[in-house]
Amino acid sequence: MKYFSKLFFLLIVFNVFSQNDQEMIEKIFDNTMSSSKTYELLDHLSNEIGGRLSGSLNAERAVEWGRDELKKIGFDKVWLQEVMVPKWVRGPKEFALIETQPGTTFNVDACALGGSVATPSVGIKANVIEVHDFDELKELGKEKIDGKIVFFNRPMQSNLISTFQAYGEAVDQRTNGAVEAVKYGAIGVIVRSMSLRLDDYPHTGVMSYGQLPPSKRIPAAAISTNASEKLSNLLLINPNLKFLLRQQCKQYADVKSHNVIAEIKGSTYPKEIILVGGHLDSWDLGDGSHDDGAGIVQSMDVINILRKSGYKPKRTIRVVLFMNEENGTRGAKKYSEISKKKSLNHIFALESDAGGFSPRGFSFTSNKENFSKILKWKNLFAPYLIQSFETGGSGADIAPLETKNNVLAGLRPDSQRYFDYHHAANDTFDAINKRELELGSFAMTSLIYLFDKYGVNN
Amino acid sequence: MKYFSKLFFLLIVFNVFSQNDQEMIEKIFDNTMSSSKTYELLDHLSNEIGGRLSGSLNAERAVEWGRDELKKIGFDKVWLQEVMVPKWVRGPKEFALIETQPGTTFNVDACALGGSVATPSVGIKANVIEVHDFDELKELGKEKIDGKIVFFNRPMQSNLISTFQAYGEAVDQRTNGAVEAVKYGAIGVIVRSMSLRLDDYPHTGVMSYGQLPPSKRIPAAAISTNASEKLSNLLLINPNLKFLLRQQCKQYADVKSHNVIAEIKGSTYPKEIILVGGHLDSWDLGDGSHDDGAGIVQSMDVINILRKSGYKPKRTIRVVLFMNEENGTRGAKKYSEISKKKSLNHIFALESDAGGFSPRGFSFTSNKENFSKILKWKNLFAPYLIQSFETGGSGADIAPLETKNNVLAGLRPDSQRYFDYHHAANDTFDAINKRELELGSFAMTSLIYLFDKYGVNN
Repeated sequence: MKYFSKLFFLLIVFNVFSQNDQEMIEKIFDNTMSSSKTYELLDHLSNEIGGRLSGSLNAERAVEWGRDELKKIGFDKVWLQEVMVPKWVRGPKEFALIETQPGTTFNVDACALGGSVATPSVGIKANVIEVHDFDELKELGKEKIDGKIVFFNRPMQSNLISTFQAYGEAVDQRTNGAVEAVKYGAIGVIVRSMSLRLDDYPHTGVMSYGQLPPSKRIPAAAISTNASEKLSNLLLINPNLKFLLRQQCKQYADVKSHNVIAEIKGSTYPKEIILVGGHLDSWDLGDGSHDDGAGIVQSMDVINILRKSGYKPKRTIRVVLFMNEENGTRGAKKYSEISKKKSLNHIFALESDAGGFSPRGFSFTSNKENFSKILKWKNLFAPYLIQSFETGGSGADIAPLETKNNVLAGLRPDSQRYFDYHHAANDTFDAINKRELELGSFAMTSLIYLFDKYGVNN
Repeated sequence: MKYFSKLFFLLIVFNVFSQNDQEMIEKIFDNTMSSSKTYELLDHLSNEIGGRLSGSLNAERAVEWGRDELKKIGFDKVWLQEVMVPKWVRGPKEFALIETQPGTTFNVDACALGGSVATPSVGIKANVIEVHDFDELKELGKEKIDGKIVFFNRPMQSNLISTFQAYGEAVDQRTNGAVEAVKYGAIGVIVRSMSLRLDDYPHTGVMSYGQLPPSKRIPAAAISTNASEKLSNLLLINPNLKFLLRQQCKQYADVKSHNVIAEIKGSTYPKEIILVGGHLDSWDLGDGSHDDGAGIVQSMDVINILRKSGYKPKRTIRVVLFMNEENGTRGAKKYSEISKKKSLNHIFALESDAGGFSPRGFSFTSNKENFSKILKWKNLFAPYLIQSFETGGSGADIAPLETKNNVLAGLRPDSQRYFDYHHAANDTFDAINKRELELGSFAMTSLIYLFDKYGVNN
């Protein structure tokens, strides 16, 4: 009987514990879906501030707004962490056209890639050579490329369920197209927009010249997927057509900006830090609602929701609004550098930077021991259709915080629509569904609750 | 050794089989995502035909289009199945306003509910009484309700992960509000739109007068969620405000329409029928892209995709475009009536009528034996993030086909956005994401492939 009672007692305790978690997560769900501030916060960030490229006035307005809102929410401490960031400015709207013969032209929706140099003020005008990868570029060689504009037109693959994978496999054209093409004498590059949809939006994004000296740099622009299809078709008819590109973007000296950090000290383990965050900067074409306004406001709202649900964190919770993820990740570098200097112990960090869509799960960077513990929580999320717990990357801003024993995670929303908006003028508040955004807040808050309650194996 | 070899052989066979399925489903995925016609078909149905309420000219155009397109796809047989359907016509745009005092008015976005009677041509104007359910109506009684317009304002619950559940728990206000309110002398009813979003779209949908004689019927309209909030707030300030509603809708005698049916005879078991379908009719306010253009074009495309994937069905595949799901389900009744008369054996039927969003799984109506067989297929869908295999309902059009041994299923897409568009003017083609729509075609085709290959336990 004695052993039986003990077993019985243990069973009860176990059940009570897991039921408690289930109940708490239900509470978190109810509170998020009925009274969270996530959507309202994003409304302000997107519609009152808007696009906020690092180094811009809007980025500084976003920093101030973030600090003020976090203060309103009520943390033990809210502060700004100084960081020098690149300042690249697009300048007047780009102009591009296809000239099939003198007097016959087609306008093209184009935008400079982030970090690109300008064209001469009258633009560049040259023949176009279409390629699909760097091998093709090499095969064509200087003979075929010299003096031309190289047109990278390899579409994102449609037959991958993860659009992020499709992006990863196509984005080298955007990031390294210019530095590769210039080897063979190209005078500029235009890149098919990183989108799976056929439409008229050009999608910007970062590009790099590597070690190329400034005098050798050639302008790089994205053109819309519709324009890419058109240009490709016109090239079949007339390989001698000309392309005109004019852009007046400019790289300035680095300027001062900030990560925004807020913290509530843990009641029991104040030295164990749980971080939640996203990036406050965005590209300049849209208002950055999905990338990454969503992640910012979801992170900001976690404490509100925990509080409403009557939960008091045992560990220290930090909200970090990272600056400059898009073109430098200087904020992330600065944050991890200072954290290391101070020997801060981030036991868990969670990033949301994949859009404000219905959450499908999380991706974890974790050792095996911790991951098997995490997998036991999976069933708590299943009633909310959050079903994928995978190992893999977390997010660009928290990745530098990885240690042998901590856990990093990225929220993984449904990715099907993400690249319709990514880095383009249509990444705006109207592309956000309130419930989908809030489900992300719910998922994040629930995971943070569990990590706060149970910690990690050290 | 003998037994070992047998076992070994069986293991190989088993592995080959399951690998074959995995490979076929991968092929189906590739073909769907790279070259399906689903989106193109919907473009035509939505943009060239548009809203197609039963009994309307557009519904007949949709029937002709469906027949012609199915013929183009290439079936053994395509035919129309005659069915008499209700004909209700909205008439000129409805007009509604709130009058807080003579001369002070607020326009209200309103639409007649499907099946409602008209108001007198000058409209009805009366005091408003807000209620949230039929119990409250009863408590208020004739004294408080007589001569007034009853305003049903119970919102869909936001803290349910399934928006269909939230709809199910709120929709009695729309379907039975009039017949309940008239018991206490109401002269009209206005109903908060069945939507989880605050916006200006009124959402129509079917209502019923039950056995109420025509002379006793009162007009019923939906008003937008924003208007509902406003009216509720104004009623707090001024309970004596008046509401004016004018609508000129009319119920005509039933007219002839059709289900559209296409069939490919099975090579091995031609008497075992696998049905896939959706409903061809829609409400009249939008173009019915999600409800249920999506289900129609996904169903139509299944054979295309199977063919491209090199699969030849062993069982008979039927595509059925049902008429009149929205206000009568007469097509479904007729189809099942004739099927029973002919003793047709539908071993499996699959319906898509929950929008063209990312598929999350299926809901099955099945006996235990078949369901345990189905559950073994679940892993084949997991790589595509189709993760929910549940028992429950299937769909309104196929439900009458249920037998002890067959299986019915409904595609279950992500439901978060569905009621933003459902029965409203914004259920249009631009609310469709091509990839999400196609993923539905993929999921459906894969499930049909498995049922065709393995059948059910009879």
